[in-house]
Amino acid sequence: MIIGIDLGGTKILTAVADKNGRIISSVKVDTQAKLGPKRVIENVIRSTNLALVKAKVPLSKISRIGLGAPGPVINGSTIVSPPNLPGWHKVNIKQILGKILKKEVIVENDANAAALAEYRFGAGKGSKNMIYMTISTGIGGGIIIDGKLYKGSTGTAGEVGHMVIDPKGPRCGCGNYGCLEALSSGPAIARVAGTKDALEAEKEARKGDKRARNAIKLAAWYLGIGISDLVNLLNPDKVILGGGVSNMGDLLFKPVRQWVAKYSMDTPGKHVKIVPAKLKSNVGVIGAIAICLSR
Amino acid sequence: MIIGIDLGGTKILTAVADKNGRIISSVKVDTQAKLGPKRVIENVIRSTNLALVKAKVPLSKISRIGLGAPGPVINGSTIVSPPNLPGWHKVNIKQILGKILKKEVIVENDANAAALAEYRFGAGKGSKNMIYMTISTGIGGGIIIDGKLYKGSTGTAGEVGHMVIDPKGPRCGCGNYGCLEALSSGPAIARVAGTKDALEAEKEARKGDKRARNAIKLAAWYLGIGISDLVNLLNPDKVILGGGVSNMGDLLFKPVRQWVAKYSMDTPGKHVKIVPAKLKSNVGVIGAIAICLSR
Repeated sequence: MIIGIDLGGTKILTAVADKNGRIISSVKVDTQAKLGPKRVIENVIRSTNLALVKAKVPLSKISRIGLGAPGPVINGSTIVSPPNLPGWHKVNIKQILGKILKKEVIVENDANAAALAEYRFGAGKGSKNMIYMTISTGIGGGIIIDGKLYKGSTGTAGEVGHMVIDPKGPRCGCGNYGCLEALSSGPAIARVAGTKDALEAEKEARKGDKRARNAIKLAAWYLGIGISDLVNLLNPDKVILGGGVSNMGDLLFKPVRQWVAKYSMDTPGKHVKIVPAKLKSNVGVIGAIAICLSR
Repeated sequence: MIIGIDLGGTKILTAVADKNGRIISSVKVDTQAKLGPKRVIENVIRSTNLALVKAKVPLSKISRIGLGAPGPVINGSTIVSPPNLPGWHKVNIKQILGKILKKEVIVENDANAAALAEYRFGAGKGSKNMIYMTISTGIGGGIIIDGKLYKGSTGTAGEVGHMVIDPKGPRCGCGNYGCLEALSSGPAIARVAGTKDALEAEKEARKGDKRARNAIKLAAWYLGIGISDLVNLLNPDKVILGGGVSNMGDLLFKPVRQWVAKYSMDTPGKHVKIVPAKLKSNVGVIGAIAICLSR
């Protein structure tokens, strides 16, 4: 048996699963991120115990624990400084949880975990090379190459949100200008649309509001360029779009697919499928389970 | 023993090598590209026979033939429509040469072959994940992942030259706007510098000509952005720059490295080394040999 933990800025989702990834029990607790790392780690342990009790599985039956964490994870162990976990600076969560729970803990950034979840259990099934992108407050991603998560030389590969798409574009949270995240994320759409968020921009666009429609069109154009870059570079079978903004459906996918057809080279452009993610709010915990199974 | 063939638009370089890739003989013949595919293929066969005679090796001792060809190669066999081989449209060169020479022929696009050559015998030795870029009339590339050439799902991966870096930039030969090739290739530099080619731009820049200096700076900026995108995406150990434009040395590498430091994320940006290619004009034929060895 295994445990998957999705450590988010607001909630911790924890599940006990069997060796095929089938979920036996799952629980959700508040992260209480504002109270700092110590409290958050206590909550992770508490959620783990709750999930075990709910599943009626003793800790001794657990072989591995997978944890999906926000932001870059270095050395497969250490959470750097995610914006939504204040007070966390290079916390070796693998070691801390490993010591308390006396289990092997596998740590992965949440976008990579989600990529693996979609590959094994979602829209990526059957593909060999695929790219997962999550478009919400930020833009993150994960790359599957030859059926395996590609992590790069120091474990940070897949940062699709910080590809510079328009070097004279708006400033990104990372300090650069014109990153995909600054052009096609939820806040980027809301800024151009003049709405409080991307959801409101979608509503306004569906009602026919011109500014909102143009904001979504612009985001889709930039997203289409970014995806085409990935298609030309990596020639994947699929690009899977998840995250809140991807719920816009055809309003986003239709123009994105048109731009990808235009900007991609012939052979890889015709081959690639741009599809919505299949797993919803539980993609994180399924990803945490998937990183255990892929060992 | 193996044979490596570098089929270029002007010359065909053919070499006989031993199983360690050591070259025993090599010959160079004119491609005569303008005379069409039939004549070019005759010249390939002729160069093969010449190289065998020069090496005093009979064809029966040859186990495999590697061929590096311009432009995208599909299905590991077919040359599509390279601009410098007029009259070639989906020519299955693997089958044609295989029938005539009665050997297994392995076909790879020349940038991929060069990437493999640099990885095995050049500046990429000892790295695990690396990207090779050749910057000359066009910009091409090859990606090594986990010590192997990454070809993607339909064999076209590595097209770094057609990443869109500035969507409002100048038109590229491919029909899109602002591809890296339209911004940082030799002709792009010459166009901005107002010189006949990149070499003259370099000379003028070294003499202090402001327009030429700015042209090279601009190309280096765009190149730095493109490389940073690759660094954020693929987190490689090395990015190797080859091709005529890379011979500018520090005039190009210094600003490129500065921009990569600025535009890359912290961990992958500090890890990556941006280095010049080691193999020179024979990189193509060494690449053709390398694709035989990597099987």
